[in-house]
Amino acid sequence: MPDTISFARGAPSLDIVDVEGLKAAAQSAFEHDAAGATGYGTAVGYVPLRAWIAERHGVAPEQVLVTNGSMQADAFLFDELVRAGDAVVVEKPTYDRTLLSLRGRGADVRMVSLEADGIDVDELRELLEGGVRPALAHIIPNFQNPAGYTLSEAKRHALLALAGEYGFTVFEDDPYVAIRFSGETLPTMRELDAGGGRVVYASSFSKTVCPGIRVGYLVGSPELIAAIARRATNTYISPNQVAQAIVHRFCVDGGLDRSIATVKAALAERVALLTAALDRELPEASYVAPEGGYFMWVELPEGTDVAALFDAAAERGVSFVKGTDFLLEGGENTLRLAYSGVTAAQIDEGVARLAQAYRALPVAR
Amino acid sequence: MPDTISFARGAPSLDIVDVEGLKAAAQSAFEHDAAGATGYGTAVGYVPLRAWIAERHGVAPEQVLVTNGSMQADAFLFDELVRAGDAVVVEKPTYDRTLLSLRGRGADVRMVSLEADGIDVDELRELLEGGVRPALAHIIPNFQNPAGYTLSEAKRHALLALAGEYGFTVFEDDPYVAIRFSGETLPTMRELDAGGGRVVYASSFSKTVCPGIRVGYLVGSPELIAAIARRATNTYISPNQVAQAIVHRFCVDGGLDRSIATVKAALAERVALLTAALDRELPEASYVAPEGGYFMWVELPEGTDVAALFDAAAERGVSFVKGTDFLLEGGENTLRLAYSGVTAAQIDEGVARLAQAYRALPVAR
Repeated sequence: MPDTISFARGAPSLDIVDVEGLKAAAQSAFEHDAAGATGYGTAVGYVPLRAWIAERHGVAPEQVLVTNGSMQADAFLFDELVRAGDAVVVEKPTYDRTLLSLRGRGADVRMVSLEADGIDVDELRELLEGGVRPALAHIIPNFQNPAGYTLSEAKRHALLALAGEYGFTVFEDDPYVAIRFSGETLPTMRELDAGGGRVVYASSFSKTVCPGIRVGYLVGSPELIAAIARRATNTYISPNQVAQAIVHRFCVDGGLDRSIATVKAALAERVALLTAALDRELPEASYVAPEGGYFMWVELPEGTDVAALFDAAAERGVSFVKGTDFLLEGGENTLRLAYSGVTAAQIDEGVARLAQAYRALPVAR
Repeated sequence: MPDTISFARGAPSLDIVDVEGLKAAAQSAFEHDAAGATGYGTAVGYVPLRAWIAERHGVAPEQVLVTNGSMQADAFLFDELVRAGDAVVVEKPTYDRTLLSLRGRGADVRMVSLEADGIDVDELRELLEGGVRPALAHIIPNFQNPAGYTLSEAKRHALLALAGEYGFTVFEDDPYVAIRFSGETLPTMRELDAGGGRVVYASSFSKTVCPGIRVGYLVGSPELIAAIARRATNTYISPNQVAQAIVHRFCVDGGLDRSIATVKAALAERVALLTAALDRELPEASYVAPEGGYFMWVELPEGTDVAALFDAAAERGVSFVKGTDFLLEGGENTLRLAYSGVTAAQIDEGVARLAQAYRALPVAR
């Protein structure tokens, strides 16, 4: 069997990670601030990076907490805001780890359909009118994981209005925002909320620097950030100061902008190759081409058994994630293709194998 | 007021951190294993560092989990083994963050007196005979925080025997073991247990590399490590791969051994200066000179109001941590002096200020 081509993992291929830039940033971090990089620091994160993020978002440093990756930020936020039995709205489909994390806390997870322009706000309104009172709505607004869809500006306003009317917090989970390769950047709900306190925002450097650096952050009200900082202190004293100092130098020395340009160019090429290959090899697949991010959601004809396709694909050396992993029920004919980790050269071959696997499924599909 | 001299914080002064060695290790990490350092990795930690630690401890890699600092390891372990209402034995006094962490989980914390040769095993036996059935006994065997005391070999055996008889786990929390500057290294309880499954061991690179690198680890049974790895995956996917890759190169390139030699020499000098200064300036203080680690416990005459001393000391520009912070009750005449963060030049002046503060207390002490 040939080496497996993986459309499964949402991680960048090494060719789009700026390893030389990271080496330089590490030197720079130890040279500029040896005491800060090597000392304990505090739970709010490495102070110069916190200040840089705050400035980038136009908020006070007291509104920012820098964590060991944004998953850790999510975990702290859920611990702070979600009690067992609380209703939490998520998109259908949504990131599997978010589902797992909420269910692990005993949340009453309410999935609301995701459309190509974002969550179905009419369906959400009906849910709210029906009496559900969520503590939180978790939304991935840009190039959603797993669907690749982006929430329209109109729906951003509509969501905020519902949050105001029904008194829930919007958790705007936005790790992909910086890697838009087509279309125009939309205002974040945090910006549209204009300090109204209805939005907590999270993002990450995993997609713009590298995942192994494990640096994410939260932006919220000073009170919420202070409460989460207390949790963080009790959990780990402080997050990784060395890694955050490296990210800080990478940002201020220009590495970040260079890296984002590299990543965008590569992902734009990959999505173009991927959609062309699907149209050619597997025209039964329907999808919306993403304008950024790592992922594309694919629907196969009703009745297609994607669980069987998964096995048939594995036999032919190609992997993906089944759509059912991102849902509580349904989606048996869907899958997620990640194009972040496949080089341009692998895409045609990977899709050809996928199409062969599809053709090999029992005709009763 | 002069700059404050801090005997408060358990952190190294910058002069004993090998910043040049860390810079070199960072270069080496990105050069040797760019993919491993920059990629997500998994929750068990950076694989080459995990293997290095396993070899150092003579265990299988499956028995090791590398975390974002050992506090995070403690948190995972408590989440795994301690339910609300469970009895947990700790030393009296013990590390304040451990107390906080256990009480935050609703544990029934049972403090057992700490003697100069470690926990009072007779008092522990009485507690057990009285019907208390702890889930866990948390023990800092070497150069305990806050007392600086070391558990004798005889008591290590006695503790293990009690753990076997009464079916509890010994949590051997051992971050200071490598920085012994006098006396002989004792076998760990994990070694003495010889795979009996009665001990979970934790240590850290905070005291041998630097705190800001936030790398700690657990050694336990493969089953326990696998269970904690699942928690870690759900919390943060993976710990910091960049930082762990740097630590790995620091270890294999010889930086660790050099750093330990530097730290030991400095701490030995500092403890000698500190005890000489106390004997000269504040002979009312009684203490046991530590053979390693960062901390020394000081008892002042019965009736001394250390809370008042704390304020009087702050006015004179010297700080420490009150003994009461490490206890649930009592200890009003005790304090912890950390000598890790004060340079040799500061010690005489710091103790002189402390003695002045003591002399200034109301005579009714």
